[in-house]
Amino acid sequence: MRQIDKGVRWPFADRVEGMKASEIREILKVTERPDMISFAGGLPDPELFPIGRIGEISRLVLERFGKEALQYSTTEGYAPLRRTIAGRMNRVFGTRAGESNILLTSGSQQGLDLTGKLFLDKGDTVVCESPTYLGAIQAFKAYEPRFVEVVTDDDGMDPEALRKALAREPNVKVIYVIPDFQNPTGRTWTLERRKQFMDVVRSSGTNAVIIEDNAYGELRFEGEILPSLASMDEEGRVVFLGTFSKTFCPGYRVGWIVADEALREKYVLAKQAADLHTSSINQREISLYLEHYDTDEHIAMLRSVYGKRRDAMVGAIAERFPEGIRHTTPQGGLFLWVELPAGVDAKKVLLDSVGQGVAFVPGGPFFPCGGHQNTMRLNYSNCSEERIAEGIAKLGSVIKLHMR
Amino acid sequence: MRQIDKGVRWPFADRVEGMKASEIREILKVTERPDMISFAGGLPDPELFPIGRIGEISRLVLERFGKEALQYSTTEGYAPLRRTIAGRMNRVFGTRAGESNILLTSGSQQGLDLTGKLFLDKGDTVVCESPTYLGAIQAFKAYEPRFVEVVTDDDGMDPEALRKALAREPNVKVIYVIPDFQNPTGRTWTLERRKQFMDVVRSSGTNAVIIEDNAYGELRFEGEILPSLASMDEEGRVVFLGTFSKTFCPGYRVGWIVADEALREKYVLAKQAADLHTSSINQREISLYLEHYDTDEHIAMLRSVYGKRRDAMVGAIAERFPEGIRHTTPQGGLFLWVELPAGVDAKKVLLDSVGQGVAFVPGGPFFPCGGHQNTMRLNYSNCSEERIAEGIAKLGSVIKLHMR
Repeated sequence: MRQIDKGVRWPFADRVEGMKASEIREILKVTERPDMISFAGGLPDPELFPIGRIGEISRLVLERFGKEALQYSTTEGYAPLRRTIAGRMNRVFGTRAGESNILLTSGSQQGLDLTGKLFLDKGDTVVCESPTYLGAIQAFKAYEPRFVEVVTDDDGMDPEALRKALAREPNVKVIYVIPDFQNPTGRTWTLERRKQFMDVVRSSGTNAVIIEDNAYGELRFEGEILPSLASMDEEGRVVFLGTFSKTFCPGYRVGWIVADEALREKYVLAKQAADLHTSSINQREISLYLEHYDTDEHIAMLRSVYGKRRDAMVGAIAERFPEGIRHTTPQGGLFLWVELPAGVDAKKVLLDSVGQGVAFVPGGPFFPCGGHQNTMRLNYSNCSEERIAEGIAKLGSVIKLHMR
Repeated sequence: MRQIDKGVRWPFADRVEGMKASEIREILKVTERPDMISFAGGLPDPELFPIGRIGEISRLVLERFGKEALQYSTTEGYAPLRRTIAGRMNRVFGTRAGESNILLTSGSQQGLDLTGKLFLDKGDTVVCESPTYLGAIQAFKAYEPRFVEVVTDDDGMDPEALRKALAREPNVKVIYVIPDFQNPTGRTWTLERRKQFMDVVRSSGTNAVIIEDNAYGELRFEGEILPSLASMDEEGRVVFLGTFSKTFCPGYRVGWIVADEALREKYVLAKQAADLHTSSINQREISLYLEHYDTDEHIAMLRSVYGKRRDAMVGAIAERFPEGIRHTTPQGGLFLWVELPAGVDAKKVLLDSVGQGVAFVPGGPFFPCGGHQNTMRLNYSNCSEERIAEGIAKLGSVIKLHMR
């Protein structure tokens, strides 16, 4: 539509400087070919979507509540769904939430955006794991904070490193963490580390909020679900972000936050200005779905399928990757993390592996302060075991070439 | 969940200062009683939702595209829907858009939020009509701009007042206008005023973007749809915001922006950080609905029903309101605007009229710089003609008491 010659120079805000189309996203566009073996996305397997049941529920919602489901609704979200979420949160994650602690969001990504909006002035500090979720970096970046990465190992965030960071850094407003099956590493914090984390934050004197992002917590392949940080919170400091994208379907774009009631009110105001409310019909459908069908059973099925895929990937890596490569072995979730030897550039590996029909995401962008170009994130949830074996074999060959 | 004694003081960003729960919203909560005659909301009439057709389409989408419709999708939005929107925009609003000019948004409210995010640094200026849409004030406020109201009369924004404002005000980044059936006034800009507006902006030397918010444009009761500002744009300066909330159903939360292709890319990046994408299943359903059914026919029905309700309200006002009250007579849309004599406080009128079972929205909050407490917005789309007559009669009596 634009006449280039006469075009205005759009008067962007400063923050737009930091919004760049990702180079990696461009490379990955070619990976949408159906013959590509993709370890790149974070997609649940659509073969596992309960399409028949959704059709049934969709019919019921229109029949019973058509007018309400298609009308504007409150920003907070559909009350029966908030009650169901609170009940499940309390049972699975040990919180003590009621419907007034819950706000329905347009995916849990919106929980991140609203967090940035509520807490971050330009130049404020976000403390996060190293590495951390790329979507959180993007959401927070719009509010122009500084990022401080805290060393995180296989047991979780290092408490001593966190203590030092909180003592050193001014204006820490947000401490953003993913204690369960982290994106991108697949790591899970031990119970001990969770307690230490909460102690360090409390005793540091900071008034920062803790954002506990938990998109994958129910997808545990082995062992017991560990207490959430929210369940250990006695100060109204933890905001828990949840989503139906992984245990139900992402296409609905429905997530939630759990927060202290007074804090939730602020999130409600911020959300109202952002998109009024999340789709009423989608909320009603999910609500009725959760009432009618056995969610535990569905999630048990997902756990079983994804657990086998993790096994397939870990097994194939042991067999096909060259020596000297470290990787995580996640107890749940969708991702594992690979560290190539220093000096091997995962972006270059990607260019070659895409040529071989295998895609993944290089790990560099998950570090808000840069570096770590020798890392990669592999997703195993949306590939059959056979394709995983084939893809890892090809990827192993490409990595070998790059390690010469 | 919070233990008040030990609670942290949340470290909110400065912008949260401006986010307040609206006092009027609190009053209006009592108006949700079913016996209340409400002129307060901006709701389409749910009796007119095509529920049967939606059920049919919903079944088809799951049958044909279940997996894709329930999976993550691109931020830009479903391409066939973008093509359909572009076609309709070009036919109805005279634009020259293609699918690459369109971004699907989570309601057109999100278009406002993303506009604030892309253009507004703290202290920048937003120029708007006086009065203007409350939701836009709220969306932009999160980015801490100054608002400058420009005098607007029954023909549209005053070009001379706009010229002066643009000459006087520094850092005007956004000029926000609603030329068709404005919320809250119901006014429509004349063709002449549209041309003058574009000329004044162009010749002023500002590089501000123009946000043309058009939620109601197709709901015209008489005369012809006038050319959109977007259709007059030769600089890539106008961003058009559209929505399915008024011509289809609000519960889906699907709107769109039309912008220059390069500018749309920035909106895509901002949206990606905000909520990844708008519900895939909702986009597919709307897309198939628009393919299968005659939208023009559905909109013609809405026009006819809402037009009669406008007539009913205008007629009742003539009969029942005391002398000395000015009001608009909208050619379309959902609202009309009432100016009580100076000194009569519409908020006090509301308190009394709610006691009589009639609700409306006082006009003050639609003026970002304050004042105008003697104004009120009346919605006529979600009330039968009988209820409109009854409500206006009661409201007239209350106003009479306040004018004594």
